[in-house]
Amino acid sequence: MATDTQQPEAREAQHGDAARGYEQPVLDVAAMRALLDGRYADVRDTVRGQLSDHADILEDAETLDRDAYRDRVRDLVVEMAATGQTALGFPSQHGGADDVGASVAAFQTLAYGDLSVLVKVGVQFGLFGGAVHQLGTARHHERHLSDVAAGRLLGCFAMTETGHGSNVAALETRAVYDPATEEFVVTTPHDGASKDYIGNAARHGEMAVVFAQLETAGEEHGVHALLVPIRVDGEPAPGVRIADDGLKMGLNGVDNGKLWFDDVRVPREALLNRFADVAPDGTYSSPIDNPNRRFFTMLGTLVQGRVCVGAAGLSAAEVALTIAVKYAERRRQFDTGGDEQEDLLLDYGMHQRRLLPLLARTYAMRFAQDVVAERLHEVTTKDAAGEDVDLLRRQLETRAAGTKALGTWHGTRTIQECREACGGAGYLAVNRFAALKADTDVFTTFEGDNHVLLQLVAKQLLTDYSSDFEDLDQFGMVRFVAELAVETVLENTAVHKLLERVRDLLPGGDDRWDQEAGLLDPEYHLAMYRFREEHMIGGVARRLKRGIDRGMKPGDVFSRVQDHVIAAARAHMERLVLEAFVAKVAELPEGDLRTALTLLCDLHALTGIEADRGWFMEHGRMSSQRSKAISREVGSLLRKVRPLALDYVDALGVPHAMLRSPELVGPVA
Amino acid sequence: MATDTQQPEAREAQHGDAARGYEQPVLDVAAMRALLDGRYADVRDTVRGQLSDHADILEDAETLDRDAYRDRVRDLVVEMAATGQTALGFPSQHGGADDVGASVAAFQTLAYGDLSVLVKVGVQFGLFGGAVHQLGTARHHERHLSDVAAGRLLGCFAMTETGHGSNVAALETRAVYDPATEEFVVTTPHDGASKDYIGNAARHGEMAVVFAQLETAGEEHGVHALLVPIRVDGEPAPGVRIADDGLKMGLNGVDNGKLWFDDVRVPREALLNRFADVAPDGTYSSPIDNPNRRFFTMLGTLVQGRVCVGAAGLSAAEVALTIAVKYAERRRQFDTGGDEQEDLLLDYGMHQRRLLPLLARTYAMRFAQDVVAERLHEVTTKDAAGEDVDLLRRQLETRAAGTKALGTWHGTRTIQECREACGGAGYLAVNRFAALKADTDVFTTFEGDNHVLLQLVAKQLLTDYSSDFEDLDQFGMVRFVAELAVETVLENTAVHKLLERVRDLLPGGDDRWDQEAGLLDPEYHLAMYRFREEHMIGGVARRLKRGIDRGMKPGDVFSRVQDHVIAAARAHMERLVLEAFVAKVAELPEGDLRTALTLLCDLHALTGIEADRGWFMEHGRMSSQRSKAISREVGSLLRKVRPLALDYVDALGVPHAMLRSPELVGPVA
Repeated sequence: MATDTQQPEAREAQHGDAARGYEQPVLDVAAMRALLDGRYADVRDTVRGQLSDHADILEDAETLDRDAYRDRVRDLVVEMAATGQTALGFPSQHGGADDVGASVAAFQTLAYGDLSVLVKVGVQFGLFGGAVHQLGTARHHERHLSDVAAGRLLGCFAMTETGHGSNVAALETRAVYDPATEEFVVTTPHDGASKDYIGNAARHGEMAVVFAQLETAGEEHGVHALLVPIRVDGEPAPGVRIADDGLKMGLNGVDNGKLWFDDVRVPREALLNRFADVAPDGTYSSPIDNPNRRFFTMLGTLVQGRVCVGAAGLSAAEVALTIAVKYAERRRQFDTGGDEQEDLLLDYGMHQRRLLPLLARTYAMRFAQDVVAERLHEVTTKDAAGEDVDLLRRQLETRAAGTKALGTWHGTRTIQECREACGGAGYLAVNRFAALKADTDVFTTFEGDNHVLLQLVAKQLLTDYSSDFEDLDQFGMVRFVAELAVETVLENTAVHKLLERVRDLLPGGDDRWDQEAGLLDPEYHLAMYRFREEHMIGGVARRLKRGIDRGMKPGDVFSRVQDHVIAAARAHMERLVLEAFVAKVAELPEGDLRTALTLLCDLHALTGIEADRGWFMEHGRMSSQRSKAISREVGSLLRKVRPLALDYVDALGVPHAMLRSPELVGPVA
Repeated sequence: MATDTQQPEAREAQHGDAARGYEQPVLDVAAMRALLDGRYADVRDTVRGQLSDHADILEDAETLDRDAYRDRVRDLVVEMAATGQTALGFPSQHGGADDVGASVAAFQTLAYGDLSVLVKVGVQFGLFGGAVHQLGTARHHERHLSDVAAGRLLGCFAMTETGHGSNVAALETRAVYDPATEEFVVTTPHDGASKDYIGNAARHGEMAVVFAQLETAGEEHGVHALLVPIRVDGEPAPGVRIADDGLKMGLNGVDNGKLWFDDVRVPREALLNRFADVAPDGTYSSPIDNPNRRFFTMLGTLVQGRVCVGAAGLSAAEVALTIAVKYAERRRQFDTGGDEQEDLLLDYGMHQRRLLPLLARTYAMRFAQDVVAERLHEVTTKDAAGEDVDLLRRQLETRAAGTKALGTWHGTRTIQECREACGGAGYLAVNRFAALKADTDVFTTFEGDNHVLLQLVAKQLLTDYSSDFEDLDQFGMVRFVAELAVETVLENTAVHKLLERVRDLLPGGDDRWDQEAGLLDPEYHLAMYRFREEHMIGGVARRLKRGIDRGMKPGDVFSRVQDHVIAAARAHMERLVLEAFVAKVAELPEGDLRTALTLLCDLHALTGIEADRGWFMEHGRMSSQRSKAISREVGSLLRKVRPLALDYVDALGVPHAMLRSPELVGPVA
């Protein structure tokens, strides 16, 4: 219930924007588009063209029966595979372009279209192909990657089990080595251990990367991945049972299913052996001694999936916002001015409040997403060796986890608000909202449940990427942190020093920086976000320590502090998002483009502070006067952003055919 | 990001609940069910039985094609009509039971099941039948009501037009009286004036209540309703064009469509003439002189629709919560305690934070909903005459508008959170979430857009149900309020005196009541909610006045204050909801049932204050220390509510067959 209860109307009259030298910028849509598209503008435009060429899939999704729709999606994926756009990150000798950054950009753009196509692409080239690429070695690459890239070999990523989605280290499928025949025997020990929700399993997949507990010579080695054929000539392979997961809320063009393995034998070479191998006699070897660390290293190589899903959440939000803003610029309802014509929806203050902060946040998340994608690109193109790369990888994993959580929640929230802002018209399937809502709903769950991901972020912050981090479950984390001094935890977060640096830049010194800085000073915004992060992390460390010191069980301590743990992770991610946005603005030369982007950056930063003003006041970093002033400033920013709203959404570059909604958005401009 | 940063673990150790004399209650599920079901327990149980008998409709919704599903829904609605459960509010001489309260209870319970069935029932008996009943006179009742009640005559409520959903006073369909033939000529002047999203229109409806601008002898009289046949022997009636609205996000068992009228002639008696009539010679007469007031009086009689949709939002939330809580009591994931077994989801603090406040709010809204339903019942059963009844009616309309907005938003939010809390399993259509999410999405829009409804609430608060209120559009409202003293506005809200009375009950006198009252004192909770409401309404009045005084245009003033207007309405409604909950607790004798209900009431009240703690601190009604203490108290309440969670959801009485989700919720207990 954010409201400003003083009299902004009065203040505005006294200190109008014009008096402060503000001039409303003109937004160069093409220049903003170029800024958003970045170095992969060509790739993005190619995919935009493909989307428009195949726009009829959006209708097929509604009219075809489920099997026909699934086949249509498969055909389209195979057709796109032929253009090379779907496997840009693969090695060039196996059908790819060695360009992970381009591959993420292509995926992000593809997410403007039908999301079953997107997820099928993700399953085939990202998850299945990615696992073969990242966990396999030359023998697997040479035998399979070109076929995967071309869509000749369709496959599954069989990790999740009915009983285990989040806690994958505990999954129960078994792979026991039999030295007599030099084979692994893959078994589903009970129904709760069946592979579940597996894309490509129910209809099209011929092979699966199966994650299983590896056993050789009576010894357990933890979870490893093996290539297992699951279908031969369209029929389940011997010993493999397959069931269809049936109708889903959305994404019904993807054939999710269950897999059971009844003593299925695969040759020794089926083991994806980049990080561990089994000799013919059953001797196990791995360059990574610690079994947990080994497993998390394997998982870490698959980080691209999370980077991509976060990006897809943003693209879906962009489609929704484009429709809602265009509608609000056309639709009139009620007359507030006493003249004959009804008012445009977007001229209503409440409508601005509903849509424009979401637009600003979408820009913010776009730039934060770019940072993650760049880091991914760097890490993948560097020689994967040395402590430095290890640390970079772990930082990337953390950041990707958090960005995925924020991006997908932002998608869910934005789509919902935009649907409601389009009224009854938004409920018809001919508009995109029905599909967007249904298809994206699971984004907050797959590739890692968002809450579990934020816990991962917090754990890494609290344990400072400790090299034995991977050993730590929540239980271990609680004890680890409880043994540290709180100062050590804070020192490790690196926010501490950043905060001090920023305080130096602001007026008022250490005590009063938050009261005397200008409301539109990005250093002030950053200092507030950093203060919150530091304080929350310190608070979590203190509470964990105190709980253990008082003799409480670690599990109970963790349960009680869990919402604080997750809030700290969120504060960390919010800081990274804002930093990315501020840095992007700082890159630009003075001029209208920078002014226009600054408006969104300020709106994003201040609505973030406003939304959490209770916390800032509780912690002595905001007076009630300043809190009210921030709400007034948000109101003022909304009125400046409003005339540019259409340009901001046009700059996103969602292809017109992907909007559908002819009655909502009107003809192509 | 609500967190408590002090050390609750430490405090807890010092001042444990046991030390405070708290004893965990045992919840008598049957007694709680009886409390929730209230005086209509029999009706509710009858409908529960019907739902279980016809549970296969939930599967049909997925497997039948659209037309077959629509027909299946129609058949079921007609079958249920034969039992009399769907028209309990109709007059007993025309197939009803003269019991509006029972009819709302039946509808609310029916909302546990397939929502296309529910909405078809709402269209047929609530909207169409309700309009014939409330706007028509004996000639219409005698001719049609029994057929409507029995489902022999299916009909539409044709109000919304493509161009006008919220501003219905401005709709453009015309009904011009022709004295030569004693007929009305009904015309759709252009495509934007076609009736749109009309349930029962695309396939089954034979007749429609059409809202149109009435003209007699060249004079306009505003919007009136007429009975127009739209289909004869399954074909569109002469001059009527019908189009299917096509696939929708959900509710695809309801045949929504568009209607155009090309000079369709209906006899003079087709006018639903309770509030206005046209004599054979074209002379117009009405007991209500003011055209706006007349129209809003007509609309007011249709308030039952809003009461019912708000109730349906709650029922949908109850289904979602029942599934999510049962799942969280079965599903284990991760081990935080260091022993062998993984932990139950509901033992995680974050999971409690996600689900249990929604459960508490569901109970709160249930009791608030009961108050609205009772008021509706009273108003409808009283002789509809006299100023008193007029005022009661207007108060009811306001309250129903606000309850509908809160109830349906609560549904949307709860369903989403519960789906995410059930992970990937929640995404499968075999569970209820897919249908719940898709079907309920439009609840926030139909029967009045939620934001527009809250504006209506605020307008009535600000203008004190002024008898010429109905004349006021936003423009008029701004000027009306600007002419009043702020004190007058506050005096009118009635919160003012309530607040004073409550302050007297609390320690600390006028200045310090908010600091010295006990955190679990319901008088404190109520005082906080009332203070916020009063302050917000006063603030809105002040800002409107100031804006006009400064010479701003009323439209601009309104736009700038609009979010504040809506926040004030929300604060008003939140106060009413809390009052209803507190009153229900106060009715109970001391004992475990009261203790268990008090836990939920406290949790609801405090999470409401916590969520808006920024506002309370801004306005000097909460110190940062107290704010943190509230978060700690919420944590403590969550741990007390948690062991009873399953009992609380069982008490709601959602039939087991309506949960589906066999793998999530397990077998019947």
